[in-house]
Formats: sequence, C-alpha cells, structure tokens
Amino acid sequence: MTVADKIRTIAADARAASYAMARLSSAEKNALLVDMAGALEERTSHLLAENARDLEAAEKKGISTAMLDRLMLNGERIGSMADGLREVAALPDPVGEVTRMWKRPNGLMVGKMRIPLGVIGIIYEARPNVTADAAALCLKAGNSVILRGGSEAINSNVAISGILRDVMEKAGIPAGALSVIPFVDRQGVLEMLKQDEFIDLIIPRGGESLIRFVVEHSKIPVIKHYKGVCHVFVDATADFDKAENIIINSKTQRPGVCNALETLLIHREAAERFVPRIFSVLSGLGVEIRGDEAFRRFAPEAKTATEEDWYEEFLDLVLAVRVVDGLDEAIEHINRYGSLHTESIVTSDYGNAQRFIREVNSGVVLVNASTRFSDGNQLGLGAEIGISTTKLHSYGPMGLEDLTTTKFIVYGEGQVRE
Amino acid sequence: MTVADKIRTIAADARAASYAMARLSSAEKNALLVDMAGALEERTSHLLAENARDLEAAEKKGISTAMLDRLMLNGERIGSMADGLREVAALPDPVGEVTRMWKRPNGLMVGKMRIPLGVIGIIYEARPNVTADAAALCLKAGNSVILRGGSEAINSNVAISGILRDVMEKAGIPAGALSVIPFVDRQGVLEMLKQDEFIDLIIPRGGESLIRFVVEHSKIPVIKHYKGVCHVFVDATADFDKAENIIINSKTQRPGVCNALETLLIHREAAERFVPRIFSVLSGLGVEIRGDEAFRRFAPEAKTATEEDWYEEFLDLVLAVRVVDGLDEAIEHINRYGSLHTESIVTSDYGNAQRFIREVNSGVVLVNASTRFSDGNQLGLGAEIGISTTKLHSYGPMGLEDLTTTKFIVYGEGQVRE
Repeated sequence: MTVADKIRTIAADARAASYAMARLSSAEKNALLVDMAGALEERTSHLLAENARDLEAAEKKGISTAMLDRLMLNGERIGSMADGLREVAALPDPVGEVTRMWKRPNGLMVGKMRIPLGVIGIIYEARPNVTADAAALCLKAGNSVILRGGSEAINSNVAISGILRDVMEKAGIPAGALSVIPFVDRQGVLEMLKQDEFIDLIIPRGGESLIRFVVEHSKIPVIKHYKGVCHVFVDATADFDKAENIIINSKTQRPGVCNALETLLIHREAAERFVPRIFSVLSGLGVEIRGDEAFRRFAPEAKTATEEDWYEEFLDLVLAVRVVDGLDEAIEHINRYGSLHTESIVTSDYGNAQRFIREVNSGVVLVNASTRFSDGNQLGLGAEIGISTTKLHSYGPMGLEDLTTTKFIVYGEGQVRE
Repeated sequence: MTVADKIRTIAADARAASYAMARLSSAEKNALLVDMAGALEERTSHLLAENARDLEAAEKKGISTAMLDRLMLNGERIGSMADGLREVAALPDPVGEVTRMWKRPNGLMVGKMRIPLGVIGIIYEARPNVTADAAALCLKAGNSVILRGGSEAINSNVAISGILRDVMEKAGIPAGALSVIPFVDRQGVLEMLKQDEFIDLIIPRGGESLIRFVVEHSKIPVIKHYKGVCHVFVDATADFDKAENIIINSKTQRPGVCNALETLLIHREAAERFVPRIFSVLSGLGVEIRGDEAFRRFAPEAKTATEEDWYEEFLDLVLAVRVVDGLDEAIEHINRYGSLHTESIVTSDYGNAQRFIREVNSGVVLVNASTRFSDGNQLGLGAEIGISTTKLHSYGPMGLEDLTTTKFIVYGEGQVRE
C-alpha cells in the first residue's frame, strides 16, 4: 500500500467511524475518556520505552535542550496527560444542545441543535501530550480525529494513540475514530491535506511556517492563527497602577506565547507622566523598549522603533511603544498593524471603554485586563483546542463548541408549504 | 489599469470601507436601505433602459425564453426589488448583539459579541434582482460587498449598483463598500477569487458547475451547496394522509429547486398499504416514479430505479422510491446517498421522531413537515443569503447572522493573570 493509499484509508475509516461517534451518549464518551486516562497511567512503562526511542533519535540529530525537554515524557507528565483526559470528561457535552427554538406562525417548532463537525485533522509539532489532549477534545465533541504530530515524537505518538485505540475497541467503538498518521515526512501531511472528501476541518498548531505550509496546500478548510501582535492602549484617564500591572503581566509573564503584549500605545496626554515610569519599570525587568519619537522625548534612553517593529511578534522581552493622539489613532494603529488576536484598553473613561469594545474587532477585546487572559481556559471555555484570527466559524480562542456546528431541527404536525 | 489591478483596487477599497460599515448604527444602516429603495424606484426609467441593452444582447445571442424572463426588469419587478430592501431594513440588526456573557471567578465579565465578517463576495447568475437583495443583506450585517453577477445582466447590475452607490455617497458612506465587478468574462471571477487579503468569504449562488468552478479556484473560504438530494421517510406508523400531503408538497410544489423531494423511503411494513396509493396519486400529478424491486411489487407499472437514481437531484417531476426495513436502513441510505441538505420523517412514533432528529445530521431535519420549509424565510430567519451543506461556519439556510461572526469581549477592573 502506498503512503497515499494508506492515508486515504485512514481518512475513510475516520469518516465511517464518525457516524458511530456522533451517536454516542455523553455518558459513553465520558466513560471512554476516563478509561483512556487509566490506560495511559497503567501503561507508563511502555510509553516511557517508546518515548526513549524518540529521545535517543533526537539526541543523535543534535536537537536543542529546550526541544528535548518538550519531547520528554516522565511519570509526572503521563499523569498530567491522564488528568487532562479526566478534565475533558468532566466538561459539559456540547452535542445535542438546542441553542434556540422558536415557533413559526404555521405552528412549526424550529430549533438549532449542536452536532459534531465530523472528522477533524490536527497537525502539530513536538509535544506528545498534544496527542492525548487534542484527541480528547475532538472525541468529546463527537468527532473522529486524525493526528499528525512532529516527526521527532512519532514513536511516542503512535504509542499513545495505540493505547487510546485499544480502549475504544474494548468499548466497541470503531478505532478508526482516532488515528495517528504514521509517516514522518511532509508527504504524510500533504496526502492528509488532500482528503477533503473525508476530513471536515484542519487545525494546525505550531510555528508560522508550519501553519503557512498547511494553508498553502490544504484542500480542506483550515482554522488557524499566524501570529499575535497584541496591543495595550493606555488612555489619558488610565489608572497608572493598573496600567503598569497589566503591561508587566501582558509583556513579561510569558513573553514567548501568542497572547503576550507586543506593542504598547500611550495617549499623548498621559505620556509625560506615564512614559518615564513605565520605561523605568520595564527596563528594570529586562525588557528592551523600542519607542517612537514622542515616547523617546520622555525616555531618551529607549531604542528607536522602526516601521517594521509595529508588525513584529517579538515573542521575547522586547516591546514596541508609540504615543498616539487618542482613541481614534489607537484604533487606526491596531487596524493597520494588528493581527486580529488580542487588544486591551486601560481607561477610566466609560465612553472610551465602550467604544473600544465596540469598534476594535480583534478576536479578544479587553478593558482593564491583561492580554494574557486571551486563552480558552482563562476565558472559561474549559479547554482550548486552538485559536483563530480568521473570522469564519470561530474567532479567538476555540473550545469544545468550536468543534461542533448546528443543524436546523423542525417539529411539525403535517404542515406543507402554501 | 489591468483587469487584475482594477479588481485588486475594488477589493482593497471594500476592505477599507468595511471599517466604516462596521461602525454604522442600526438606524444609519436602515435609513440607507430605505433611501436605496426609494432611489431604485425613482430611477426606474434609467434601469429599464440599461436592462433593455442586456435584453437586446441576450436576444442576439439566442438565449432561451426562460432565461430572458429571468433577466427582464419591469416596473413591478423594480418595485419588488425596492420592497425587498425595505424588508431588510425592517429586520433586526445582528451586529452588536451579545449572545452570551458570563463571570469568571476573578471577576472578569466575558461575553461574545456579534460583529460583521468584513468583506463578502457574491458570485451569481442571471437575475439582476440578486444584486440589490444580496447587497442589502451584506450591508445590513455591517459588511462591504463585492458582487459579480451573470455576464448577461452586466448593464442592469452596474446600473443598480450605481444607484445604490450614489445613495451611499450622499450619506457619507464610502461607496467602496458596494461594488460590482464590471468584467464579464471568467477572468473577472478568477481575479476576485485571489483577493484573500481583502475578501473574507465568497458565496456562490447558481448551478453546480458555477459553484464547482468557484470552489476549485478560490483562495478565499467558500460557503456553498452543490445540490439537494432531499429525502422523506414514511415510517410504519405514519399518518398516510399527512404523508401523502407532505410528499406531494415536497415533490410537486416547485420541483426545480434544491429543497424539493428527490428520494422517498418507505418502511416495509407500510409498503403494502401505502405504495399503491402514493403511486397512483403521484402518477396522476404527472410524476415519473422510479422504484426499487420491493416498491414495484405493489406498483408494477413504476419504472425501475438504478443505483445512479439514489444520487440524483432530478429537479423535475421524477421521484426515486425505495422500500427500507426500518429507521436504521433509512438513516443508512441518507448517510450514503444524501447531500446533507434536507430530510423529513413522517411518523406517529415518538421514539423514531426523536431518533431521526438526533441521528440524521443534514442541515435541516424535519418531523411531519414538507422539505419545502428548508428555506431561510420559511424557517423564520427573515431572509436567505444562501444555503450551506458544509458544516463550517454555517449549515443549512443562511440568514443575516451567518454574515457575522462573534468576538470575545472582556470587562475587567485591572485583573492580571496569576
């Protein structure tokens, strides 16, 4: 069997299994996830042995220590993976929810009911725990899932999915509902992206180059975000203590992630008082500041920002700062340079807070809060399968509901159309 | 300027105008639509003159009478077009609706707010009234719209959009928010489908070949349906009078549309009593019946159905009929041959009604009602911009809400992440 044939078979099996997945009750799905958690813990030694093969190969390839750490499993990490499955089991089941129902003049009762999307493909990089996490969310939402992890983790991923599939088979659920693509080169990804007959949605998780590769080659709809150029706007009336806390938290709590602050906008009227203060505190925390001319008037030691800096996702302790004339210019800047990810205003002005909420159309728009809250768990979705900066289907952090769609249901009593 | 440059400019202008569109209040949008309606009526003679040019060219090309009729405008049709705009003005504005809001343990108030998608491209065929209808729905939902109608209607479409743009300019709204692609060949469509930087969604409306062409070439997400192979399943316990009414209405009220019945499934236990009756009444109405062997046992004069008939969208007074062993086989048939459009069960059995609603995952699933209700207006959406048989973003008939997305909004008081 060629790679193409094998992947087509995996995809067709996933489609066939998706009908059985869609019919499972919440109780059946939850029991499945809890049993999967137990099985992962029971088979720790097998998982560690398979993971050791990946680690050995990675070391031979001279992979970085950081990468090796992301690849490594141990008892504690396997326990966390199992607990993750139990947490997904505990989440409410979105499938079957009737989100609205109304009555038509002819007596028809019309509603919208949540149903699974069908078959979801996840393409990701090094961490093997994503295999269990992503599978759990897709299955909980009644979908089949096809996973294609990083080539470095192939033995770990096949071992994890093998354990999960064993549990499914014991429960009488077709194991085709959960597959790992067992090919480590790009051809495996390319063949997967051609299966639009069987796969409903692709979610790529990883660096911008992986995501661009997926978008470029996919015949299947892709939900993705390329980058997070997140903004905080400090309004003239901002409470400077709050502003300082929010900026420090947004920039430094975890600078390497997509919801970290990248560009700070400061109202001209606040500049004289706020610029020296924020420059001093951020510099003290090791943040490199690149300011525009107006910023540097009050913080001459700051580096000079270039036009490119406004587009940049630094993912590091670097911050671009610009002084703006007011809310209009702040919104213009965000529309022009932003990535539709996350923006926050710090203000005491009611009208400006409401205008910012209404007029800034990024996936997450906050008032007086850290950009770091732009996360499925932090926002209360219970989990996060990814984040979308494109507006179709899902926008912003994605939870279980984003792995479903709604159909129309109609209860009649013999009605026909006039 | 080349065609490519011109279309890129149209798309870029639409994107730029979309920010202004998104900020308009409901009152401003409604006033705009009402003014547009008045302007179309006032300029009837201009519209008729431009339409006459299209009609003349079409006649020279030897176009069919049916096509000429679809192309033709007259005072009454212009009046209907204007009334259509007034009806859209009267619909509730989806933009700004907060669909849900909840409080997090740290006090953050998190909600989801409806916002416009941005820029929507509509690609359609002959009828010039679609130009006004589709534009109105896109604008009402706060979007910019780019229209590419059939080449036969180009003068009518340019005239209609010109009148609507004049009204926008008078109201101080950038006219780039509404454009007609003025090129009549396929290159115009192809260039439009490349503008993924500026256009968020393409909705093609027309025959299957147009839609396949658009899907094949689009870099922009497309929401579409290829065909409607709609089913009615007559259960063993069906009320035969209701079943007969529903089948007649579904099949014959308007056989050429996508929500017309194409395949009838009959429970084996109902076959002996129901088959002769439904065969006789449908034959009397001029419907050609193609039955399987079990059907023909009780209606030997029926033609024989082939395997291809189960996939067929006849769009005519032709019906495929099959006798099935029960609900399971009916659902299997629908999953295998269906088009995810619309399915109805006729039954008196509570359990089977609920199972059909739960387990059949087409865009519209009905109990004891005609498939002809699968329509945005009939279901109560107030309007219909299209219909989707793919599950991402929208599924089933699409109304104003489907031209929006939701962003997260967060009201804080200085919260930062632990």
